[in-house]
Amino acid sequence: MLIGVPRETAAGETRVAATPETVKKLVAQGHRVVVETSAGQRASATDEAYGTAGAEVGSAAQALGAELVLKVRAPDAQELASFQRGASLVGMLNPFDRDGLQRLADAGLTAFALEAAPRTTRAQSMDVLSSQANIAGYKAVMLAASHYQRLFPMLMTAAGTIKAARVVVLGVGVAGLQAIATAKRLGAVIEASDVRPAVKEQVESLGAKFIDVPYETPEEREAAEGVGGYARPMPASWLTRQQQEVAKRVAQADVVITTALIPGRAAPVLVTEDMVRSMKAGSVIVDLAAPAGGNCPLTEPGQTVVKHGVTLVGETNLPALVAADASSLYARNVLDFLKLVLPGAGGVVLPPDDDIVTACLVAHEGRLLRA
Amino acid sequence: MLIGVPRETAAGETRVAATPETVKKLVAQGHRVVVETSAGQRASATDEAYGTAGAEVGSAAQALGAELVLKVRAPDAQELASFQRGASLVGMLNPFDRDGLQRLADAGLTAFALEAAPRTTRAQSMDVLSSQANIAGYKAVMLAASHYQRLFPMLMTAAGTIKAARVVVLGVGVAGLQAIATAKRLGAVIEASDVRPAVKEQVESLGAKFIDVPYETPEEREAAEGVGGYARPMPASWLTRQQQEVAKRVAQADVVITTALIPGRAAPVLVTEDMVRSMKAGSVIVDLAAPAGGNCPLTEPGQTVVKHGVTLVGETNLPALVAADASSLYARNVLDFLKLVLPGAGGVVLPPDDDIVTACLVAHEGRLLRA
Repeated sequence: MLIGVPRETAAGETRVAATPETVKKLVAQGHRVVVETSAGQRASATDEAYGTAGAEVGSAAQALGAELVLKVRAPDAQELASFQRGASLVGMLNPFDRDGLQRLADAGLTAFALEAAPRTTRAQSMDVLSSQANIAGYKAVMLAASHYQRLFPMLMTAAGTIKAARVVVLGVGVAGLQAIATAKRLGAVIEASDVRPAVKEQVESLGAKFIDVPYETPEEREAAEGVGGYARPMPASWLTRQQQEVAKRVAQADVVITTALIPGRAAPVLVTEDMVRSMKAGSVIVDLAAPAGGNCPLTEPGQTVVKHGVTLVGETNLPALVAADASSLYARNVLDFLKLVLPGAGGVVLPPDDDIVTACLVAHEGRLLRA
Repeated sequence: MLIGVPRETAAGETRVAATPETVKKLVAQGHRVVVETSAGQRASATDEAYGTAGAEVGSAAQALGAELVLKVRAPDAQELASFQRGASLVGMLNPFDRDGLQRLADAGLTAFALEAAPRTTRAQSMDVLSSQANIAGYKAVMLAASHYQRLFPMLMTAAGTIKAARVVVLGVGVAGLQAIATAKRLGAVIEASDVRPAVKEQVESLGAKFIDVPYETPEEREAAEGVGGYARPMPASWLTRQQQEVAKRVAQADVVITTALIPGRAAPVLVTEDMVRSMKAGSVIVDLAAPAGGNCPLTEPGQTVVKHGVTLVGETNLPALVAADASSLYARNVLDFLKLVLPGAGGVVLPPDDDIVTACLVAHEGRLLRA
């Protein structure tokens, strides 16, 4: 079938949904692929490289008018006008954006939102949230290092010793773990915290220190141990003591990286204005929750600002700042997903009973299937 | 005596010649120190911190009008007008700038250019070229990582493996060695080259590969082995073959960091336009020789530009981008130098026979002593 890969038009979006590597595989499967001129330019993929991989390089209208369109971000109204009714769309379509999904349904698209894939073993290779969070965790540390006016590693020189940076990572998911690993590579001293005490082992395996908060009641201990392999939310008493411990570490930190995002909801406050005030002049906070309002109330999404002598980085699209590798992983996620709905060289087929496809399908035959 | 620390006024200069740490020591030695308001602001040193260290916070005129003035960069004409005749000045005064030094002599200053210190063991702790090159080498890698649209480390993810960045470092002095060490920390695969084959061991001890160029004549072998412990310049035949080997590695590189600076002369060309053309789209060159015209003819000093799909970073003051630690090391260099000319709480005394002081003294009693 004809697959289109348009150039992304959202502000600051540098990624592309297919790379010469994945285009080559789609062409080998018998598909035709049209890539919009300069679609991969910002991700270090030239039109020439797409051509060599077997793609035709064409216009936006050609790419958006294909039977199957591969996107990074949900199409805006102008892009949507170029789609054919009945076409298929794969992308990060924001499953919590009811209005946006309704527009896709109204356009008659069969739309798959990859963020909605279940977090199962089978779905791992198409897990866009993880692949992009991995990149974001790396870039968060590189941005912190850019703004921080000291070195990360300890350095012993003829003019004396420079101390290693003290980094605190709040929230230890995929992004937090990669932030820890990257800061560790650079020689920082790292402490990390999470509302799930069970991540302590992962944190320590990366060479960081977990900010321990002892359990004071049987209820706290039981919650931490979990039931049937699943963690339970920690009681409020423990969370309050944890916040106090975190506040002490933040006051001593040179760099704080916050990563607590709750899908579809505003980000929780982890670093209060008082905590920022307690920090040293020249410290840096990178707030990965900026797209959801931020883990710090002083964060300004999309901006880098200095408040109380502390630099707050509120970048809202960190993976786009590592466009080539972010695209490379995303395009592989897309390719792996396509194996489920593109059984041959023909069109998109919805398998009758596939939990991943069912979870991702947000619009079909004019109907909204989500939110 | 009264020591002044003005805020630096050169464009892009963020460093400061004394930190609260060194001010405290000068005050303990019985000196009065006047620090200009916000002199350390960009280097994460607040007026409050200077006050706590025992300094008075004052005006530019007060700091520049002191008996001894500590500077990072040579004073411009406007600053010079605030100096007292007979005052002393310590800074990076550019010993190759004859006109600039003449102006210092004309102003009746006793001026010490720290870059002119001999590279002896005793002078190591006041070696500003080394301390700042160390910072520059670190920052060069961080800038490369900022512009490079892929990750430095190899990453194994559910969506497949990401390859480590290939970094080539040309010129293995202090900056080159720190660039190698930093890129290695970040997980890159590194090759390095230098016109002195003897640095091979240092390169390998940091985990990088030295780009070997075999010796084909006894003359080449003798030059490499050196005489009496000193290396001799390598013959042209060997250098030509080295350039060919380097060109092959640059074509495969993701990041190239060039560091070849010859004091007082234009930088040698190490990366030609043809070599840039041979590089992959999205590659990055950081040219540490930008202040001397660059090791690549396409470098635009002070700018970051994209040519032939390659990003060329021509920052001319890398240490100023890590202002706090660059200032910290520089201020310690200055403090160590002052031990030679400030024997007590009284004024500056020129020791009759000190090779470091003699080398650094560029102007005294109206006379130019250099260039």
